[in-house]
Amino acid sequence: MSATAYETLESRFRRMALLSEAAGVLHWDAAAIMPEGGAQARGEQLAELKAVVHGLMTAPDMGDLIADAEAAGPDLDPWQSANLREIHHQWIKSTALPEDLVVALSRASTTCETAWRTARADNDYAAIKPYLQDVLDLTREAGRAKAEATGLSLYDALLDDYEPGGRTADIDRVFGELQAFLPGFLGEVLEAQARKPEILMPEGPFPAETQKALGEKFMAALGFDFDHGRLDVSLHPFCGGIPEDVRITTRYDEDDFTSSLMGVLHETGHALYERGLPERWRRQPVGEALGMSIHESQSLLVEMQVCRSRAFLEWAAPIMREAFGGSGPAWETGNLYRLYTRVEPGFIRVDADEVTYPAHVILRYRLERALLDGDMTLDELPAAWNDGMEELLGIRPPTDTLGCMQDLHWYDGAWGYFPTYTLGAMSAAQIYRAARDADPAIEASIGRGDFAPLMAWLGDNVHGQARLMHAPDLLTQATGRPLDAKVFEDHLRQRYLGS
Amino acid sequence: MSATAYETLESRFRRMALLSEAAGVLHWDAAAIMPEGGAQARGEQLAELKAVVHGLMTAPDMGDLIADAEAAGPDLDPWQSANLREIHHQWIKSTALPEDLVVALSRASTTCETAWRTARADNDYAAIKPYLQDVLDLTREAGRAKAEATGLSLYDALLDDYEPGGRTADIDRVFGELQAFLPGFLGEVLEAQARKPEILMPEGPFPAETQKALGEKFMAALGFDFDHGRLDVSLHPFCGGIPEDVRITTRYDEDDFTSSLMGVLHETGHALYERGLPERWRRQPVGEALGMSIHESQSLLVEMQVCRSRAFLEWAAPIMREAFGGSGPAWETGNLYRLYTRVEPGFIRVDADEVTYPAHVILRYRLERALLDGDMTLDELPAAWNDGMEELLGIRPPTDTLGCMQDLHWYDGAWGYFPTYTLGAMSAAQIYRAARDADPAIEASIGRGDFAPLMAWLGDNVHGQARLMHAPDLLTQATGRPLDAKVFEDHLRQRYLGS
Repeated sequence: MSATAYETLESRFRRMALLSEAAGVLHWDAAAIMPEGGAQARGEQLAELKAVVHGLMTAPDMGDLIADAEAAGPDLDPWQSANLREIHHQWIKSTALPEDLVVALSRASTTCETAWRTARADNDYAAIKPYLQDVLDLTREAGRAKAEATGLSLYDALLDDYEPGGRTADIDRVFGELQAFLPGFLGEVLEAQARKPEILMPEGPFPAETQKALGEKFMAALGFDFDHGRLDVSLHPFCGGIPEDVRITTRYDEDDFTSSLMGVLHETGHALYERGLPERWRRQPVGEALGMSIHESQSLLVEMQVCRSRAFLEWAAPIMREAFGGSGPAWETGNLYRLYTRVEPGFIRVDADEVTYPAHVILRYRLERALLDGDMTLDELPAAWNDGMEELLGIRPPTDTLGCMQDLHWYDGAWGYFPTYTLGAMSAAQIYRAARDADPAIEASIGRGDFAPLMAWLGDNVHGQARLMHAPDLLTQATGRPLDAKVFEDHLRQRYLGS
Repeated sequence: MSATAYETLESRFRRMALLSEAAGVLHWDAAAIMPEGGAQARGEQLAELKAVVHGLMTAPDMGDLIADAEAAGPDLDPWQSANLREIHHQWIKSTALPEDLVVALSRASTTCETAWRTARADNDYAAIKPYLQDVLDLTREAGRAKAEATGLSLYDALLDDYEPGGRTADIDRVFGELQAFLPGFLGEVLEAQARKPEILMPEGPFPAETQKALGEKFMAALGFDFDHGRLDVSLHPFCGGIPEDVRITTRYDEDDFTSSLMGVLHETGHALYERGLPERWRRQPVGEALGMSIHESQSLLVEMQVCRSRAFLEWAAPIMREAFGGSGPAWETGNLYRLYTRVEPGFIRVDADEVTYPAHVILRYRLERALLDGDMTLDELPAAWNDGMEELLGIRPPTDTLGCMQDLHWYDGAWGYFPTYTLGAMSAAQIYRAARDADPAIEASIGRGDFAPLMAWLGDNVHGQARLMHAPDLLTQATGRPLDAKVFEDHLRQRYLGS
């Protein structure tokens, strides 16, 4: 009975999803709440949960169940078909790697991550290089195995873990356009900025409690439901939890509220996406959030497209002033807008503005492909990094701490992740453009602090679509065309040059 | 290879323990942190974890593994032997009940618990009775199955879930002695109390933050390690987590700090026990906390024996005064001591003092045995309850809300639990007596806020013993004699009549 095979698969994936949700709570707890002394036990609890899920995923009859369910393909509706496609894909990838490679890669990443923390602090690339070489070698081995199982190239096979359906060919196309546009544009933006009034920093202190209350106010306005979520503190801000209980974190700097507030709004974008996933497909692969580019598009749509816009700040600036009792020129809406759209080339990716950010990503994408393809060695990495920064942003990092050691990703085994940041930024611009084209009331309502029209459109066209399609198709369906760097460029030109 | 059978069992129980720990974190989170909207998903996550553990426990080869390991008995050391005994016992009990009875009992309890919340608020026993009848019928069915599997009587088989090795015969003996002693003693105490100065309540408000800081100060002094634990807020205070990360909760009344503070100290006693369990036997059945009577003995030893003693309050009262800026007669050490040892018969068990508490327990024990043995019907319960209160404490509840509907236990399926409270109170007195006999420096050091000598003795004689023996043997080994109501009576006489 092949219909039964599909139902059996649904029921197994539901079990795996529930166990992964439990792991998600444990991860959130470890980041936000857990006393340090609980770390080792937590690691063992998570490893055991992972082992149970892996055992369910690699059950001996799984291949037959999938084949039987696929034989009944015509009986399935489009969502079921997409679910089965995702199930098959997850299963192929879970069984592609031999167990000992999974363990070796996990160990090498953990060791390298720990060593990286010290090496980065000491600006000692030589000390971390052998560990990074281990991670790179094992990642290539894993990539080859995944490539063989999926029929993709090595890089695409790694990328696929973060961006299902993402392909180097598409990235090369849009990144190429950006790379041609950005350096000249950056010069124009810096010139235009120099002609505008000096940017003033509001003066604190800004008590963490007040910042939290303000963040919660904006979250609620955006549609975050505190019956189904929380805002907490953690060292590295993130969005965790599950759609019914989605939890974002931030950290507060009592001398500067502006950066934490935008961080909260960014994570709120992630949270609203999770919360908006279709209830009917909860705990099935097709009901999960799409890859990282769409996830990041939702956070960047809220943060970059909406909350750094003049329309938003017209509404939000008075609320900020009231929260902190601020007055004077630094608190004027115009100044806050200039502050929130300041452009300044710098060494550190996570501090970058939206104009210079793509350069950071393009550099990493270029380098990680060369390293994975064997066209470059780790000995050559630091100089190649610095040359790339000089070429793309006109600045040369004085240390590797400010250069090729700044990001955890490679040291932790996350290769093929970086491009999704800029794919997300471009998708955000394109989706927000399409939303406003579809409903011209959206922008005006944002100026009144009413985000319902925007969220309704996103719910229909993005959130509620989950994994029915992969990102390129979703984008085409929602915006009428494939990912197009021009839309992002138009956004930047309009915001920074007013043209 | 029978040694291998034992090792296989250890490894399986380690896996089950890790999954149960994960469930523990999820339970804690639900009680202390989770937004309400996450409740249903959380229930499903917990059910799935339970199903996985049940699957491991009832694996088809488990019986053979246990038999093989037992055949190699002489090769095992005493801890391994005790571990195997616990493993066997847990397995027998897990397999004693047919799956559909487990599900039916769980459903009936959930339904009854929900209905009970309304019925209790409405003082409507008639409304809850049919649901309670379902729970009682299914509990008797489960008890019979457990009795058959373990060779115990029905009540002892239920009791054994909370108190391994606990037997009705022993309880009848010590409860009989208490019942003979307490009514007359209570009269004497009330007379003596009436001759003492009036008890004054310190006047607030007492900010929750200050209460928390004070609680943490006392916790730290008692030896609670905040690198391995937390103090949080929940509606119903409890101690959760694991030895490496033990978490207690309380709730704050800003008009009265005294009750929350003692609650924190009570939970700290539970926490120190968990934290003191032997590291070598973590995640094995023999390494778990012994039954409820010993667990409760550790919380009551800290709360009732130590922290309501004059020695403790001589040290603690000035710290309380300083924390809240209190002064005047209500804050004098003598008044605080009288406040913390006030005796007053009342209807509600959880508000009872240590002199009247046993009467509440004896009544419940008597009634639940009669109901389980079929000697009484649920129709007769309310009147029997009220008659018992009149007999034991001289007061008659005006409503069933203040009578047989006050406690969740029966409605939630926890039958055979109640006696452990008073077994714990008696054990606490006996253990504390033995500790002071063994190390006369203990009481004086408490008067200086130094709890290390007491905790060292408890670590050796109670915490570190885990489940090597059952409670009656542990008590005999630690104190030189079986549970003896006289020691508890001496404690009460000494504290309340000064003789």
